[in-house]
Amino acid sequence: MALIVQKYGGTSVGSLERIASVAEKVSAARQAGHDLVVVVSAMSGETDRLIRLAKGIDPQPNPRELDVLISTGEQVTIALLSMALEKHGCPARSYTGAQVRILTDSAFNKARILEIDAQRMRKDLAEGRVVVVAGFQGVDEQGNITTLGRGGSDTTGVALAAALKADECQIYTDVDGVYTTDPRVVPEARRLDRITYEEMLEMASLGAKVLQIRSVEFASKYNVPLRVLSSFTEGAGTLITSEEEGMEQALISGIAFNRDEAKLTVLGVPDQPGVAYRILGPIADANIEVDMIVQNIAEDATTDFTFTVHRNDYEKALHILRATASELGAREVSGDSRIVKISLVGVGMRSHAGIASTMFQALAKEGINIRMISTSEIKISVVVDEKYLELGVRALHSAFGLDAGK
Amino acid sequence: MALIVQKYGGTSVGSLERIASVAEKVSAARQAGHDLVVVVSAMSGETDRLIRLAKGIDPQPNPRELDVLISTGEQVTIALLSMALEKHGCPARSYTGAQVRILTDSAFNKARILEIDAQRMRKDLAEGRVVVVAGFQGVDEQGNITTLGRGGSDTTGVALAAALKADECQIYTDVDGVYTTDPRVVPEARRLDRITYEEMLEMASLGAKVLQIRSVEFASKYNVPLRVLSSFTEGAGTLITSEEEGMEQALISGIAFNRDEAKLTVLGVPDQPGVAYRILGPIADANIEVDMIVQNIAEDATTDFTFTVHRNDYEKALHILRATASELGAREVSGDSRIVKISLVGVGMRSHAGIASTMFQALAKEGINIRMISTSEIKISVVVDEKYLELGVRALHSAFGLDAGK
Repeated sequence: MALIVQKYGGTSVGSLERIASVAEKVSAARQAGHDLVVVVSAMSGETDRLIRLAKGIDPQPNPRELDVLISTGEQVTIALLSMALEKHGCPARSYTGAQVRILTDSAFNKARILEIDAQRMRKDLAEGRVVVVAGFQGVDEQGNITTLGRGGSDTTGVALAAALKADECQIYTDVDGVYTTDPRVVPEARRLDRITYEEMLEMASLGAKVLQIRSVEFASKYNVPLRVLSSFTEGAGTLITSEEEGMEQALISGIAFNRDEAKLTVLGVPDQPGVAYRILGPIADANIEVDMIVQNIAEDATTDFTFTVHRNDYEKALHILRATASELGAREVSGDSRIVKISLVGVGMRSHAGIASTMFQALAKEGINIRMISTSEIKISVVVDEKYLELGVRALHSAFGLDAGK
Repeated sequence: MALIVQKYGGTSVGSLERIASVAEKVSAARQAGHDLVVVVSAMSGETDRLIRLAKGIDPQPNPRELDVLISTGEQVTIALLSMALEKHGCPARSYTGAQVRILTDSAFNKARILEIDAQRMRKDLAEGRVVVVAGFQGVDEQGNITTLGRGGSDTTGVALAAALKADECQIYTDVDGVYTTDPRVVPEARRLDRITYEEMLEMASLGAKVLQIRSVEFASKYNVPLRVLSSFTEGAGTLITSEEEGMEQALISGIAFNRDEAKLTVLGVPDQPGVAYRILGPIADANIEVDMIVQNIAEDATTDFTFTVHRNDYEKALHILRATASELGAREVSGDSRIVKISLVGVGMRSHAGIASTMFQALAKEGINIRMISTSEIKISVVVDEKYLELGVRALHSAFGLDAGK
C-alpha cells in the first residue's frame, strides 16, 4: 500500500464525463489499497473564460482580484470530482489551496509555495478518505488567495507529494509519457520508461512540453518520483527520478528541438573585457530572453559574437544590436530568423566520449550545415537552417539507436 | 459621513456592463464621503449553471461539496466588481465568506450565521478601501465552506450591517421599493417611503417577494435600518425600520395576496381535545406546510376544521385528510384549489377599530363572498374565489385610500 499523489490536468477533467472517468480511475487505485491525494486543474477552457471576463472589465486587471477570480476554476473541479467519488461510494473531501493551507508568498499571479500543512490531509487519509486538492492556488500569510501561474497545478502535485513524503507523484495528461522525440516528426519515436530529472529539464526547456519545468525542478529538489501518464489510455507512462548508481542508462535519452528561435551575430567587435556585457545588456534591458550564446575569437584581435532569441523578439533585438554595434565599432551585424535548434539530451554523455562527433557526422552525411554549436554537461545543441529540421532530427534519432524496435 | 452596507443581487451584476454600472454607483457613494461595504450575489444564471453541473454528476450531490461548488459564483462577482472599482480609481478589496470570517453552523446548503469578524473590514475601511464581500456564504468552525441557502445574500448584507453597526443596509434589486400592492394588479399602487419590519414580514410572507424573510427578521432583531431600492433607476426606495414613537403611521401599509394556496375542510369532526393535532400531524409528517388554520364549533358537539396548503400539495393533502377523517369519524371532507388569499397589512390596526368591518364591507359591495377569515395583530387575511382576486385587491386598495394621488 502506497501513498500516491495523482494530478489531472484540464483536458482530463474537461467535461462531466471525463470527471466521472477520473473518479473511476481514482476509485480503482483506492480499491487497490493505495492512499490517494488527487490534485486537479480547472476544466479545460474555464481559466480562459475567467480571464476573458476579467479583461472585459479591465485589460490590466488588479492582480490580487485576478487570483480571487481564476482560483474559482479549480474550486469547481474539486467539488465536482469529490461529488463523483462520493457517488461511487468512495469517501472524498475537497480542499482549496487556502483550506489545505498551501502557504505561498504574496506575488499574485505567480506565487511560490513556501510551506504546506499536511495535517488535515493526513487525518482524512487516516480516516479512509480520498483528498481532492485544487491545483494552481494557495494563500499568503495575510489570507489572500494566490495563484502559482499557468501550469502551476503540476507544481502543486509535486509539492504535496514532497510534503506528504508520497511514494510517487503521478501526472495524468493527454500524452502517455515522455518520448525520445516528437512522434509527429519521427514516427519511430519511442516512449521512455525512465528518465532523470536533469534530462527531463533539458527536454522540457527545449520544447518537449509535457511537464512544467518548475514542477520537475521541485521534484528533483525534494527527490519525488514523478510519473507522466495518460488519463485516456492504460500504460505505465514514463518515470522521472534521480540518477541512481547501477541504473542502466541509455547514452542518449532523447532529441529535442525548438522552432521558435532566431539567431543574431555581430562581427568584428574589438576583443576587450566587458564586450559580452555591452552587447547583451541592452537586450536584457528590453526584456528579451537570450538562449544560446557563442563567442569566437578571430585573428585580428576582434571577435564574432552570436546569440539566439525568441523569433517574436527578432526584429526588436536586431534593432538594438545595430545601435550597440555602431557604438562598439563592430564591423557588421547579421541575423537569421529561419533557423532551428536541435539538441541531443542524455546523462550518458557525461561518461562517454565521441557523442559530439557522431552527431556531427550524422548531420554531415545528410548534407546539413551546422551554423552554431553549444554544449552542456548532458546536452549538445546545434543550430541549422529550418528546412533541415525533420531531416536532422530523424537522422540523429536513427544514428543514436532511438528508433522503436532497436 | 455614514457607514453603509450595499447589497446587489444577481440581475444587478448579471453582465460585465451591469457590474461596471454598479462600480459607478459605489464610487459615487464613496465620493459622497461614505464608508462602503458591498455585498454581491452570483451573476444571474450562474448559480443555476453550477447546480446543473452538480446534478450532472449526481442528482443528490454531496451537500458539503455542493457548497464548495456554488460558493464560486459569488467569488467570481466580488473579484470582477473589485477590479471594476480599482479601475475607476476607487481602492477596493474582495473577501469570500471564509476570508471575512463569516462563521456559520455546519448545516451545508442552509447554514445559519453565528458570528462575523468585523476587524479586517474595519481596517480596510479605515485605510480608505471599499470592502466587497461575497454574499450567501460562510465558513464553519472546521474551515468548511458553507452557504446560507437561496436568497442568502440579503441575509449576509444585513448581518454585516449589524456586525459593523452600519447606519443603513441598502438592498439593490430590480424593483424600486415596496409597493402598497402589486402594480400589475392595481396600476394605482404606490411605492411606500417607509414601512416597519413587522409589516414587511407580513407583506413578504404573503407574496410580495422583494426581500428574503430571513434578512428582514435579522434586520429587525438587530434594528438595522433596511432600504430597498432599484439598481436600475434613481430614487430613495423604501426604508424599513422599527416602529417609532410619533412616527406618522398609515392605517394600512399594503395589500398582499397569494395565488398559490388551496383550501381543505373536514366537516363534523367530534369536538375533542387533540383533534387539531390528529388532523394536522399526518400533514406535517408528509412535509406539507400549512398556512391558515380556522376552526369553528358547530351546534352538535362537532367542529369544522379548515386549513390552507400550497396548491402543489393539494392532492396529496386531500388524500391524507380523507384517511384521517375516516379514522376520526368525521362527516365529510371537502377542498378547493381555486382560491386566493388577500391580506390587509398595517401596524395601524393595533390602535384602530373598525378595519375588519371596512374590509368586509368593501368586499361585500363588489359581491365577493368571503370563504375564510384569519387575523393577527397587524394583518387580516381572507380567502375568496380566485376569480375575485383582482376585483377584491382593487376594491380594498381604494377603500383604504392607498391609490396614488390620494
